[in-house]
Amino acid sequence: MIAGAGFAGLTCARALASASVDVLLIDRRNYHLFTPLLYQVASALLDPGEIARPVRELIRPLDNANFRQAEVTGADLDRRLLITDRGQVPYDYLVLATGSRSDYFGNTSLAEHAFGLKELHEGLALRNRVLGQFEASRWIAEPERRRVMLTFAVVGGGPTGVEMAGALSELIRLVLHKDYRDLDLGEVRVLLLEAAESLLAAFDGPLREAALRSLKKKRVEVKLGAKVEEVTAGSIRLAGGETIPAGTVVWTAGVRGSDIGAAIGLELGRQARIKVEPTLQIPGHPVVFVIGDLAGAMEGGALLPMLIPVAMQEGRQVAATIAELVWNGGAHAFRYKDPGIMATIGRNSAVAQLGSVRLSGFLGWLMWLGVHLVNVISFRSRIVVLVNWAWDYLFYDRPIRLIVRAGDDRSTPPPHAGTQG
Amino acid sequence: MIAGAGFAGLTCARALASASVDVLLIDRRNYHLFTPLLYQVASALLDPGEIARPVRELIRPLDNANFRQAEVTGADLDRRLLITDRGQVPYDYLVLATGSRSDYFGNTSLAEHAFGLKELHEGLALRNRVLGQFEASRWIAEPERRRVMLTFAVVGGGPTGVEMAGALSELIRLVLHKDYRDLDLGEVRVLLLEAAESLLAAFDGPLREAALRSLKKKRVEVKLGAKVEEVTAGSIRLAGGETIPAGTVVWTAGVRGSDIGAAIGLELGRQARIKVEPTLQIPGHPVVFVIGDLAGAMEGGALLPMLIPVAMQEGRQVAATIAELVWNGGAHAFRYKDPGIMATIGRNSAVAQLGSVRLSGFLGWLMWLGVHLVNVISFRSRIVVLVNWAWDYLFYDRPIRLIVRAGDDRSTPPPHAGTQG
Repeated sequence: MIAGAGFAGLTCARALASASVDVLLIDRRNYHLFTPLLYQVASALLDPGEIARPVRELIRPLDNANFRQAEVTGADLDRRLLITDRGQVPYDYLVLATGSRSDYFGNTSLAEHAFGLKELHEGLALRNRVLGQFEASRWIAEPERRRVMLTFAVVGGGPTGVEMAGALSELIRLVLHKDYRDLDLGEVRVLLLEAAESLLAAFDGPLREAALRSLKKKRVEVKLGAKVEEVTAGSIRLAGGETIPAGTVVWTAGVRGSDIGAAIGLELGRQARIKVEPTLQIPGHPVVFVIGDLAGAMEGGALLPMLIPVAMQEGRQVAATIAELVWNGGAHAFRYKDPGIMATIGRNSAVAQLGSVRLSGFLGWLMWLGVHLVNVISFRSRIVVLVNWAWDYLFYDRPIRLIVRAGDDRSTPPPHAGTQG
Repeated sequence: MIAGAGFAGLTCARALASASVDVLLIDRRNYHLFTPLLYQVASALLDPGEIARPVRELIRPLDNANFRQAEVTGADLDRRLLITDRGQVPYDYLVLATGSRSDYFGNTSLAEHAFGLKELHEGLALRNRVLGQFEASRWIAEPERRRVMLTFAVVGGGPTGVEMAGALSELIRLVLHKDYRDLDLGEVRVLLLEAAESLLAAFDGPLREAALRSLKKKRVEVKLGAKVEEVTAGSIRLAGGETIPAGTVVWTAGVRGSDIGAAIGLELGRQARIKVEPTLQIPGHPVVFVIGDLAGAMEGGALLPMLIPVAMQEGRQVAATIAELVWNGGAHAFRYKDPGIMATIGRNSAVAQLGSVRLSGFLGWLMWLGVHLVNVISFRSRIVVLVNWAWDYLFYDRPIRLIVRAGDDRSTPPPHAGTQG
């Protein structure tokens, strides 16, 4: 049984297609999310259907796989039972792949006021907020109040923060200014706040500087060495005391493993990731594996980064181990083969570090585009994403700028019948 | 000033493009919704971005038009002020075009438990509910409980109800059965309940019967003469006492004019539509017009139906009147030119009544497809809708089956900064 249908869990299920096992995937969502493009939903470039696919559709080709929607709330490892909000399910082998979530480090002001960017509904909520602030600002007579409303602060200078800040600035400067004829772009600020002294810590120095230049060109104000201490409805207070008025704060500066590890009572490492053997088994429980962001797999004394290639390679490795264990084989240690890292900064610009190759600017962006287009999961989705991107590229326009809530289902669902979100 | 950016308001704004007036469009949503395809969002065939366009984008070509997002809550006709939740706005001419909403006729059980199908968020909520019921049913061991969960009752045999019931049955029988290998289609019911003795009252007898046959072929259970008296979380009680177990109820059987008429204190006719002069002016207030579903325009002693062609023709007529009034001209009476009516019943089947032409079945459907494709508002949207439809048609598949909530924005918006919807 696999808990979690993200990149790790889904890859593991696919790699088990020809093994002599029945695979049950469980996830609290009914879809697999292509997370690298979530910031494009938040910046009104893509619709949800373009970056998410129903899990049931994705596993249709797998004869031995089934899916159940439920929230995994715990497990009884001795009795080999997975516990969910909809019931318990027995297992022979268990793969935990429930991923990571935003971590506000116990800062309640952040948890209350900042927008996360890990889930599809968070991407939509942020899109609604950005567009809603522009609409609301048209009714405000005082320039000072408008300025606060139109200040968007992205916290965290990793790939997600860099991508979000770049896309947001482009949305505003290339698209929204056409919709809002009376908008004074001088009243709009996009800030990127990073606690360390440079952006994109995982990249080489020259690429970090290329990214910084590119962001500045796109009018993103980058503040390095800026540690956020408190967020209110209208401002951010930094360590050191400086206060920045900002109507909207996006938090990309911390993630931690999902709560399942603590719920089961497993030993956790940094970022609440579950401690595992080199084989990705849980110590003392050889039929229980952890893969993806949730796994605290080490290499060279350091935790492996929370990246999709890591998750997918771990998923394949564990699938191979399980296929062998069924025939009384043994487990092998996992070794990560690094394919490289990339981050984009809006239209025309990205940084890519692949082995000894270093690309930045337009070439980096073409590489980024190709890799992501190939990886957007279905063929149909690829056509639609391409149409949207081509449109955006040619016309400097965003086709999707709707403020819409899916939420408020009118009726109270009967027990166990609620949709999850 | 035009209150409402639906078909009536938007058409009026466009028709005023060359008049010597400044046009301000106000709507509580930031988008124009192509309502005839809303049932396709509810049945997981289209994404919101494909049937809705930002108002600001649509009015870009209009040099004299601007947009503000706000909920219209009233008007002071003597002081010529429109009152919104974000402030008051003075006007010289006022066009009320805030449309209609679901009417539950004071039945609180309906209002509480039934799903409406008038707004984009309602379409998304219904989609989430339908897919959520299928997921939840997989955890239920008792067939009787599963049967109730998987019974979907559409109330109202007008075009919306017929389209929704047909699309829902196809979603289940052509698509979902592939996703749910262990699903027993005998446990699934799609009901269409109509209080009158026939469906599609506006159509000729032979077309009504063709629609009924087509629905039955698609395994929709049609109950005529079935008046709904009460809805609970798991059942419907009909007049006469019969109780039908049903986990999900969709209400399409009643609409009424939006609440603005009552808020201003205007005289209302049937369906809470505002009484107007033949010129669409409000009696005693020659600078105030009503168009679209909200207008109680009469022809031959009967109210004009709530149809898009009526709304668009009224919008054009009032634009012409205002253009003349500016130069001290006069107002002319409105006369409706009926282009015909159409309703579709899922794939391959529709009924169309256009002048003396009567089409049903596949020919009717081709006509329906052509008309709607031409009318989906932007070119880009048309490509995407066509890709989705072609995919659906060729592969009997629905690309979009995500259960996703946009809603729960995490932070409390500052005053006047909330998104609507």
